[in-house]
Amino acid sequence: MRVAILGGTGDVGEGLALRWAFHADHQLVIGSRDAERARSAADEYETAVSNRGQDVTIEGMANEAAVIDADVVVAAVPAYHLVETIEAVRGNLSAGTVLVSPAVGMKRDEAGIHYNQPGAGSVTALAADAVPADVPVVGAFHNLAAGRLANLDADLSMDVLLVGDDDQALKTVTSFTEDVDGLRALHAGPIDNAAEVESVTPLLINLAQYNDALHDVGVRFE
Amino acid sequence: MRVAILGGTGDVGEGLALRWAFHADHQLVIGSRDAERARSAADEYETAVSNRGQDVTIEGMANEAAVIDADVVVAAVPAYHLVETIEAVRGNLSAGTVLVSPAVGMKRDEAGIHYNQPGAGSVTALAADAVPADVPVVGAFHNLAAGRLANLDADLSMDVLLVGDDDQALKTVTSFTEDVDGLRALHAGPIDNAAEVESVTPLLINLAQYNDALHDVGVRFE
Repeated sequence: MRVAILGGTGDVGEGLALRWAFHADHQLVIGSRDAERARSAADEYETAVSNRGQDVTIEGMANEAAVIDADVVVAAVPAYHLVETIEAVRGNLSAGTVLVSPAVGMKRDEAGIHYNQPGAGSVTALAADAVPADVPVVGAFHNLAAGRLANLDADLSMDVLLVGDDDQALKTVTSFTEDVDGLRALHAGPIDNAAEVESVTPLLINLAQYNDALHDVGVRFE
Repeated sequence: MRVAILGGTGDVGEGLALRWAFHADHQLVIGSRDAERARSAADEYETAVSNRGQDVTIEGMANEAAVIDADVVVAAVPAYHLVETIEAVRGNLSAGTVLVSPAVGMKRDEAGIHYNQPGAGSVTALAADAVPADVPVVGAFHNLAAGRLANLDADLSMDVLLVGDDDQALKTVTSFTEDVDGLRALHAGPIDNAAEVESVTPLLINLAQYNDALHDVGVRFE
């Protein structure tokens, strides 16, 4: 599969790129608003993975070019950049390309971090409203700690919650998720159920704040 | 400790009563709007636990009487009965009694179950608004599957998320939670962080609907 990670120079993008480069065998493309930064991040990830004895090639280019012919596009950008990022690449998305949305809108107050629910119901729903009708959207990877992903020595043993309205796209993302050792994909239903999935992210941050040794914590359902 | 479980004849109340009767050594009181029903549930739970070789005494009485002299009062009633239940017992709560709120407001649509956030911000906040000022409230036990609690053969291995504004009350509920084998208490911050904790309950129900073998599932953060 050809997999583009938009915002692939950010923390989440880096974690996802390193893990999939290390554990799986896809054509990985790092996308960024700035093609130069994408290429330099791709080189850096290539080196990190190659240093662990795994020879990989990772491409880097502007977001608009990165999505061309991709089977899966992960929009690893902050929630407030999501719609503009999708609009920038929209014309280059192929019918059937699966767009994966891991972003969560959050706000902080004195007590901690809170879910900032968009008017559309969820950030995943915002993404679904922004893509062409023939591009299915799956919400996933909201609850993965970037630091733990990026540390290839770290055990993951985490669940990944998926929401989506297209069965074939859910199958693709399930399989893509489980390419990575320690990740298990669980289905949380259609995109209308995304808010409850996205709300786990601020909870994880609050738990890290209020409990020792729960930094970079993941979630398991059992 | 003297522990009153209001709504102790319901599913959640039953699970909590059986587990604490079995694993801990508190004076347990089942409360109900109907004293007769409370007494008959208490007898039933006593028998269930005694049949497993553990001799216990469980009292049963009307909610108003059950809270008298209780160290901990668990309001195991549905969210839409919570405020009226607290109002009914309010005059009998002692200063320093800890009120524990496990209720979650939810609504269903075609996709699944959703968190129904009260105007107060959370159900725990509703409880905090309804008690006298000298009664601290702790939100807890939202995410425990009643059926799994009530099955004394079932392994729990679940985390319990606590929110509260009073450190002493949080300590009491932490220790009370961890009386039960397999339960670990985690702090999610002040009551202002309760919504993210309560939102996990509809997520668990959605996961049970969309994944085989995830009925009565619990959550762990690791």
